[in-house]
Amino acid sequence: MIDPDKVAAHLDRLAKPKGSLGRLEDLAVRLGSIQGTLKPETKPRRLIVFAGDHGVVADGVGIWPQAVTGVMVAMIAAGRASCSALARACDASVRLIDVGSAMGEVPSSPLYCDRRVGRGTLSLAQGPAMTADQFWAAWMAGQTAVAEARADGMRIVVLGEIGIGNTTAAAALIALGCEHDSDALVGAGAGATAETLDRKRTIVREAVARARDVMADDPVAAMAAVAGFEIVAMAGAIAAAGDADLPVVLDGVVSGAAAIVAQAVDPAALETAIASHVSAEPAHRIALESLGLEPYLDWGLRLGEGTGALLMLPMLDAAAALLKDVATLDEVTGGGGG
Amino acid sequence: MIDPDKVAAHLDRLAKPKGSLGRLEDLAVRLGSIQGTLKPETKPRRLIVFAGDHGVVADGVGIWPQAVTGVMVAMIAAGRASCSALARACDASVRLIDVGSAMGEVPSSPLYCDRRVGRGTLSLAQGPAMTADQFWAAWMAGQTAVAEARADGMRIVVLGEIGIGNTTAAAALIALGCEHDSDALVGAGAGATAETLDRKRTIVREAVARARDVMADDPVAAMAAVAGFEIVAMAGAIAAAGDADLPVVLDGVVSGAAAIVAQAVDPAALETAIASHVSAEPAHRIALESLGLEPYLDWGLRLGEGTGALLMLPMLDAAAALLKDVATLDEVTGGGGG
Repeated sequence: MIDPDKVAAHLDRLAKPKGSLGRLEDLAVRLGSIQGTLKPETKPRRLIVFAGDHGVVADGVGIWPQAVTGVMVAMIAAGRASCSALARACDASVRLIDVGSAMGEVPSSPLYCDRRVGRGTLSLAQGPAMTADQFWAAWMAGQTAVAEARADGMRIVVLGEIGIGNTTAAAALIALGCEHDSDALVGAGAGATAETLDRKRTIVREAVARARDVMADDPVAAMAAVAGFEIVAMAGAIAAAGDADLPVVLDGVVSGAAAIVAQAVDPAALETAIASHVSAEPAHRIALESLGLEPYLDWGLRLGEGTGALLMLPMLDAAAALLKDVATLDEVTGGGGG
Repeated sequence: MIDPDKVAAHLDRLAKPKGSLGRLEDLAVRLGSIQGTLKPETKPRRLIVFAGDHGVVADGVGIWPQAVTGVMVAMIAAGRASCSALARACDASVRLIDVGSAMGEVPSSPLYCDRRVGRGTLSLAQGPAMTADQFWAAWMAGQTAVAEARADGMRIVVLGEIGIGNTTAAAALIALGCEHDSDALVGAGAGATAETLDRKRTIVREAVARARDVMADDPVAAMAAVAGFEIVAMAGAIAAAGDADLPVVLDGVVSGAAAIVAQAVDPAALETAIASHVSAEPAHRIALESLGLEPYLDWGLRLGEGTGALLMLPMLDAAAALLKDVATLDEVTGGGGG
């Protein structure tokens, strides 16, 4: 990392009106300061998708059955999911880390890694979703995925997730972490009827109330009680990227919840995090505000899989090009300038 | 062109929650319907930058002297401007069409084309900025640039401009075209002091009042009175792209003014126009609303040169990938779906 002001000062030396590229300049400052250089590199980069299942799905919080997680895992492993298409378009490789799906037969694909710490969480409606041991195992799986990305020379990582039911866990985590009324944070996720939405609200409200009782004494236990394996793994990945001065691009509400978990475990975890978009889920905006992250896109995205985060990659390419390829005023005026 | 509903129906067949990619889906619908296919192509693409000077600069509407247009033209011709860097990052070629700079020695560069219809406009503060003949010559230069892009196989064109003083002309055109109070539409452009901003407001107010007198009888004369050569060329380019079912990506407030001119000349001109961003200039939002175009980015950009429009190219790549590369529900469920 270097002082963001150093990068901003370089932008101010370019032959263009100061500040005239608005948020693209913010992005350039963020990228340059994280990588510690005025010549940041944005390739190669990798999308890491974490997968996990949620016991709470059996309690009727959405319209999709748990088996859909496995279908989506198979689609990503086969390179045919939405994130696969966008990753190709944005020149990112894909790695799918299964930290807790309930699938039977897993895909045989070089993209897929079976690192399950459980076969789905227990239902957060009935009690703690996972043990502390499982929490740390999932966290480590996230850290390992980032270590592998670094070893493979990645300059940026992009995080995504797949897990039917995980907007329920995300809403609970954000309500818990931001000390916000949970009812207002529960949205439709990938699909809900009025009935399932109502049930989702009740379940989240009660689970958050139970978790709040232990939050002060044992925040990890409190968060583990309402989290998901893929969310905790994503939190570990965010913290690992922060440790390694590696830019990490966040996606929607589930990665917002993961950022809340990461910051609770490690207050410096978000040093290299970049918020790509604010999603259609109401909890996401609350989480980003609480984290002090300002999103770049407001496109009503709510798919997950890292799809929104991938869209930031070409913007980061543009930000890097701005720093590296534009003439300075000195060059244009033949020296002696500002 | 094909019915947008056909493209939307294809998106609804994909193996993902319906509508879950928000505005990226809108962009896919727009791109597919314009190109008349479910398999749109986004490459090759070209940024066309139109250059022109403005007589009103001598009346003190900004902080930059007219000569800066020539400096920027030279930078773009040399591939060292902000738009050059972003065009490379976004995989677009660049063509610089000088329709009216006041430069003496012009750059010798394969990117630069001298097609000047005048050496800067007359000052819109003193009388009509250009003649009707000049208006149509500039319009034709824009149409020719798009015809050349089509002949070279371009699947998308992106429009930009350079011209010191052109936010003054743009504010006047938007006030005229949108029948809006001009004072509220005048912003700082690429740079202004309180004094120059005040003078800019007065000049625009008076020029618009004069132009309004002839608007009903002769809209071309009214617009020519306050326009710029590069703005009219851009309007011709927009209309030519509309005629040719070629997606054309608009940039900031000056291209918004060009779109107003294009629509006044040809009500169907905007059929293939895509608004990339809403700029920091107050007139831009008014223009886009009046035109029924919804921008994708709100990043406070105000540089021009097509820089904001270029950022949409990777988004269009992603939108095309969504249409072409994601599995349908039928494929996933083995048929019988949908």
